Amino acid sequence: MERTAAIKKICDAKFRLGLTWADIARSIDRSEVWTTAACLGQGTWEHDDIEKLAKITDLPTEELEILTTVPYRGRSESIPQDPTVYRLHEILLVYGDTIKELIHEKFGDGIMSAIDFTMDIDKKVDPAGDRVVITMNGKFLPYKKW
Amino acid sequence: MERTAAIKKICDAKFRLGLTWADIARSIDRSEVWTTAACLGQGTWEHDDIEKLAKITDLPTEELEILTTVPYRGRSESIPQDPTVYRLHEILLVYGDTIKELIHEKFGDGIMSAIDFTMDIDKKVDPAGDRVVITMNGKFLPYKKW
Amino acid sequence: MERTAAIKKICDAKFRLGLTWADIARSIDRSEVWTTAACLGQGTWEHDDIEKLAKITDLPTEELEILTTVPYRGRSESIPQDPTVYRLHEILLVYGDTIKELIHEKFGDGIMSAIDFTMDIDKKVDPAGDRVVITMNGKFLPYKKW
Amino acid sequence: MERTAAIKKICDAKFRLGLTWADIARSIDRSEVWTTAACLGQGTWEHDDIEKLAKITDLPTEELEILTTVPYRGRSESIPQDPTVYRLHEILLVYGDTIKELIHEKFGDGIMSAIDFTMDIDKKVDPAGDRVVITMNGKFLPYKKW
Amino acid sequence: MERTAAIKKICDAKFRLGLTWADIARSIDRSEVWTTAACLGQGTWEHDDIEKLAKITDLPTEELEILTTVPYRGRSESIPQDPTVYRLHEILLVYGDTIKELIHEKFGDGIMSAIDFTMDIDKKVDPAGDRVVITMNGKFLPYKKW
Amino acid sequence: MERTAAIKKICDAKFRLGLTWADIARSIDRSEVWTTAACLGQGTWEHDDIEKLAKITDLPTEELEILTTVPYRGRSESIPQDPTVYRLHEILLVYGDTIKELIHEKFGDGIMSAIDFTMDIDKKVDPAGDRVVITMNGKFLPYKKW
Amino acid sequence: MERTAAIKKICDAKFRLGLTWADIARSIDRSEVWTTAACLGQGTWEHDDIEKLAKITDLPTEELEILTTVPYRGRSESIPQDPTVYRLHEILLVYGDTIKELIHEKFGDGIMSAIDFTMDIDKKVDPAGDRVVITMNGKFLPYKKW
Amino acid sequence: MERTAAIKKICDAKFRLGLTWADIARSIDRSEVWTTAACLGQGTWEHDDIEKLAKITDLPTEELEILTTVPYRGRSESIPQDPTVYRLHEILLVYGDTIKELIHEKFGDGIMSAIDFTMDIDKKVDPAGDRVVITMNGKFLPYKKW
Amino acid sequence: MERTAAIKKICDAKFRLGLTWADIARSIDRSEVWTTAACLGQGTWEHDDIEKLAKITDLPTEELEILTTVPYRGRSESIPQDPTVYRLHEILLVYGDTIKELIHEKFGDGIMSAIDFTMDIDKKVDPAGDRVVITMNGKFLPYKKW
Amino acid sequence: MERTAAIKKICDAKFRLGLTWADIARSIDRSEVWTTAACLGQGTWEHDDIEKLAKITDLPTEELEILTTVPYRGRSESIPQDPTVYRLHEILLVYGDTIKELIHEKFGDGIMSAIDFTMDIDKKVDPAGDRVVITMNGKFLPYKKW
Repeated sequence: MERTAAIKKICDAKFRLGLTWADIARSIDRSEVWTTAACLGQGTWEHDDIEKLAKITDLPTEELEILTTVPYRGRSESIPQDPTVYRLHEILLVYGDTIKELIHEKFGDGIMSAIDFTMDIDKKVDPAGDRVVITMNGKFLPYKKW
Repeated sequence: MERTAAIKKICDAKFRLGLTWADIARSIDRSEVWTTAACLGQGTWEHDDIEKLAKITDLPTEELEILTTVPYRGRSESIPQDPTVYRLHEILLVYGDTIKELIHEKFGDGIMSAIDFTMDIDKKVDPAGDRVVITMNGKFLPYKKW
Repeated sequence: MERTAAIKKICDAKFRLGLTWADIARSIDRSEVWTTAACLGQGTWEHDDIEKLAKITDLPTEELEILTTVPYRGRSESIPQDPTVYRLHEILLVYGDTIKELIHEKFGDGIMSAIDFTMDIDKKVDPAGDRVVITMNGKFLPYKKW
Repeated sequence: MERTAAIKKICDAKFRLGLTWADIARSIDRSEVWTTAACLGQGTWEHDDIEKLAKITDLPTEELEILTTVPYRGRSESIPQDPTVYRLHEILLVYGDTIKELIHEKFGDGIMSAIDFTMDIDKKVDPAGDRVVITMNGKFLPYKKW
Repeated sequence: MERTAAIKKICDAKFRLGLTWADIARSIDRSEVWTTAACLGQGTWEHDDIEKLAKITDLPTEELEILTTVPYRGRSESIPQDPTVYRLHEILLVYGDTIKELIHEKFGDGIMSAIDFTMDIDKKVDPAGDRVVITMNGKFLPYKKW
Repeated sequence: MERTAAIKKICDAKFRLGLTWADIARSIDRSEVWTTAACLGQGTWEHDDIEKLAKITDLPTEELEILTTVPYRGRSESIPQDPTVYRLHEILLVYGDTIKELIHEKFGDGIMSAIDFTMDIDKKVDPAGDRVVITMNGKFLPYKKW
Repeated sequence: MERTAAIKKICDAKFRLGLTWADIARSIDRSEVWTTAACLGQGTWEHDDIEKLAKITDLPTEELEILTTVPYRGRSESIPQDPTVYRLHEILLVYGDTIKELIHEKFGDGIMSAIDFTMDIDKKVDPAGDRVVITMNGKFLPYKKW
Repeated sequence: MERTAAIKKICDAKFRLGLTWADIARSIDRSEVWTTAACLGQGTWEHDDIEKLAKITDLPTEELEILTTVPYRGRSESIPQDPTVYRLHEILLVYGDTIKELIHEKFGDGIMSAIDFTMDIDKKVDPAGDRVVITMNGKFLPYKKW
Repeated sequence: MERTAAIKKICDAKFRLGLTWADIARSIDRSEVWTTAACLGQGTWEHDDIEKLAKITDLPTEELEILTTVPYRGRSESIPQDPTVYRLHEILLVYGDTIKELIHEKFGDGIMSAIDFTMDIDKKVDPAGDRVVITMNGKFLPYKKW
Repeated sequence: MERTAAIKKICDAKFRLGLTWADIARSIDRSEVWTTAACLGQGTWEHDDIEKLAKITDLPTEELEILTTVPYRGRSESIPQDPTVYRLHEILLVYGDTIKELIHEKFGDGIMSAIDFTMDIDKKVDPAGDRVVITMNGKFLPYKKW
């Protein structure tokens, strides 16, 4: 059983059963973002969670087992074409240097970790048009001198 | 007076006078993120703010006036090399499709605007290592059918 | 049933039945541009329209159902080779900065939305050679300051 | 006198004198789009128009004379980073194949000329948010068989 | 029946039957260049010609019918590796600006159309080594001002 | 004296003195294409021709002497943006494989030389619109077996 | 029978039968370099040689017949990753301009043909480590003036 | 004194004094290829040779001294446009895999070193057209297992 | 039996049997790094080792035999997206020039061989967080002068 | 005083005074690798170290002061051409996936930090040819689940 096939099976099951990512996240008791990423092949699963995932998607455990190995992470295209994904790239083009400047001003020389990192995506209802709120939370790692 | 020259003058003044981006933001009564971005040439200034900026940076108003025109936004490199900026690109590579999926699940077909958009960068003190918190807040725009 | 397969089935049916995009657009009571784009996988369908589409293309509804999910938008190549499509890229190369200048002159700092957006393609008969008229109509979105 | 220098002088004069592209267009009795494009170096000027341009920009005719030669057209970057210009590229990514399909459906095999071509950019006031209307008008050129 | 499959069938038949492109061109009474290009998927066929093509290649008409639709033109690689094709790219690298200069000197600002365009490829016998003669003939299209 | 500077001086002189490429070609008794290419830095000059060139452009011989060395040939961009030059690239995209096929059919395995090569650019007056005629003439070189 | 399939069959047969390229070259009485290149799809075979090739590889002649047509030459990647092939690219990066300078110094303006060209690869035994000796031999082609 | 400036001075002196690379090579008693490469900035000079180079080029030693440091090797463009240099790239495209195959057949798994490497460029007079002979000689390095 | 298929079979067997790379390395008495690389298709196997590999992976010898031929080395993407692999690319971006400087300072002009090369990857337990220690060991090869 | 200018001054002083990187490292009591990287603009300096650096390089402190700000890290080219630097890229191409596999096998899902990271470069004398030993030491960071 290959990883790509496992991902496809989950997505097909989700569509067929009318599941949401939130449903799946609740079933394994993890955040929506981590769960979605992991279902799309960007995370490493625990054996226990695989069993819960198998149950809610009505798939055999052994077809999902491959997801307990560490994946090669990344998207198929480095600069996204899809408008929804592109907007995040555009934010990087416009505000990337600003984020760097302010991280250094507040923390010193270093980075925000993308590994010791969590993210939430929320909906803020607004009469002038609802708003997407993305909160990224990463550990600051200071550059080592030696 | 050219835009690039104006940006350079602001950065030189900031270094020479030991100013922080927060200092400059307070002086024009705007957020740190917008102020930093605008000082780096990614925003359009109001005439009034230019005068306040001239005052705190000790620069002649006319050398900054060009910043009231609309800029060509963007960075010099589309895929960043600098590790601090790269981590944001990596987040897009790993979680980009996840963000797309969850925006659609919560809002339907459309995008988070990068124009009707605000961002904050905060420091969350943590004994296990301080954390960078980036909050993006953009209006949801539904795809039009016609 | 996969999205790509659904698109191919529609195109095959269109060719086999001698349908035009205009025929299909009329059958679902939408514009030609939106209908064509959506049949080529660049739009999200309503369940009701899928049924009408199934009828005119003589295809089973369930083979088209996948089109009610939100697509990954974009073309396979970012810079087009096909001469008909390339001309639009060339217009961007020659007049792109001009469009930017005039949008800013007439509206201020901001963009023409490509999401809250409609387009029409018309034929204007002309004895000196018929003319293609493309009308793009997008909401102006002012850049937010905060 | 070099072409790039001439373009820069026009832009500087426009900024210094507070001119709009519309002002310049009126002074040479041409459309705003053509005038802006030509001032940005994307068109070939007539000697008569150079004199009018010199007058309104308060520049010596001989510094603008180089603009009567045919330019090398194009932008510095093929895929735009600036969000206002990018939206046009995105429209091509999402609707490019649709435009091709409908041109062929209405006209047969051929292209919309980008040479025998005019464009207008208008503002349509709308209480729900003003709209940018771009109208492209190009001669249809049928592909020759021989 | 897909376009790629149709092209492959023609090429296989040509090889199997020992046909030349000249044979095929004669059978449909068109030039060698147009015929070859159209057989390779770069042209739109008339129904009548498809029947003649079916006859000489000994293929069923319905397997070639797809060639009456307008193709997406272009090669799989923008910068050719094959030495025979590369030489044409090299001519563009070495003489491209020269061609532009001389078109403008002889015709004014505009282009040689690649649509209202014919080409011939001839063999000129020469004792010092035979010569390939490629003649391109395209309508001059003057750039429009408006 | 550098090569780029020499080219610029020739072009400036041509503009200032109102010369055509044809004038310069006649003065050195060479074809228009070779002369233009060589003035743009794509050819190696003879000492005698440099003197004639110096005379007609009214430039000191020693400022042009560098043109007797062999240049690094090529354009600054491999895929052209300028519409006049692009059309030649497009011809390669659409007809490149066709040219390859017909060269092989008429000559066997080999190439048309771009070194033992001449080119002419002519104007063919036509009431339906004048036509650009480009004639390329290159020695066929058969691929060696050993 | 496709060309790629034919190449694969030869390579499989070579591995299965324990043949060397030298064995195959001897069987068709050609050089090792030409033979290897042609077996890898970079050359055009004679009918007679195909029969000898069929014999030594124990393959049916008709499965190899496609190799008598002219191939599209080139590698799948323009800049090689494989270390053995990369060293040749590196030699070009380090010594490419030197080769150009010395060809011009010894021969004048022109090129070393890659078509009227032979190559040998030899082993020179050396107690300090054996050495690879690659000898390239190409006709000098002078650039034509006209 | 910068490296690029030193290279330019050598080239200017060579042109001004009418020197050949062979002259310079003789003056430092090294091969033509190494000498040319080193003058173009692709090699590290000994102090003694710098003095001889200074003498023959009539330049002050201290302006050349920088050439005793180790350079960053490489060309400005990875895929060459210049036809003379391109032919070497084409040889790699056509024969690269062949060279790999034959090195492995004759030596086993490993590479031809581009560091413990020499090259010669010779002219072989031939009534049918003189020939360029390039001989590359590199130590075979076997891949280590551990 | 193809190389890619052989690699896949080994990986599948490793997953199915719960083997580690260390287990496989021990079974053939080689280092973990070499063994892993060779199982992933980046090394050339000895016949004897293939038999041991067949045994531990419970696969038929003949399905692995292809691994005794020399591979085309490299990864599918030159700039890695996967965060674990990317960090090594980032180290090259940040410290690449430093490594070059220090190799030259300690050894003179030359390179660290990537062929006569070994590598180890170790775990250093550390209460502040375990550390990855990568040790690269390559023969210094001095640049040859001739 | 700009960063690039400061770096150049240090390198010029190092060359002029005959300093080694080791000399400079000792003078500020840091490792050779960190010191070299920081002198090349890839690190952030402390004020105290700047004074020591100024002393050993005989440069005014204020010309080096800019180095106390956080740099934009990276090299000018992502894929290196210089052979010494390229070998490190090649190691990534050949062994990148192997390193990933073994980090995961020994540590689980996560990365070796390139921020909490040190490196040493040593010379190991060996009669068969001295060896370069590069030791990388980075904290393992486990991927967070949430």
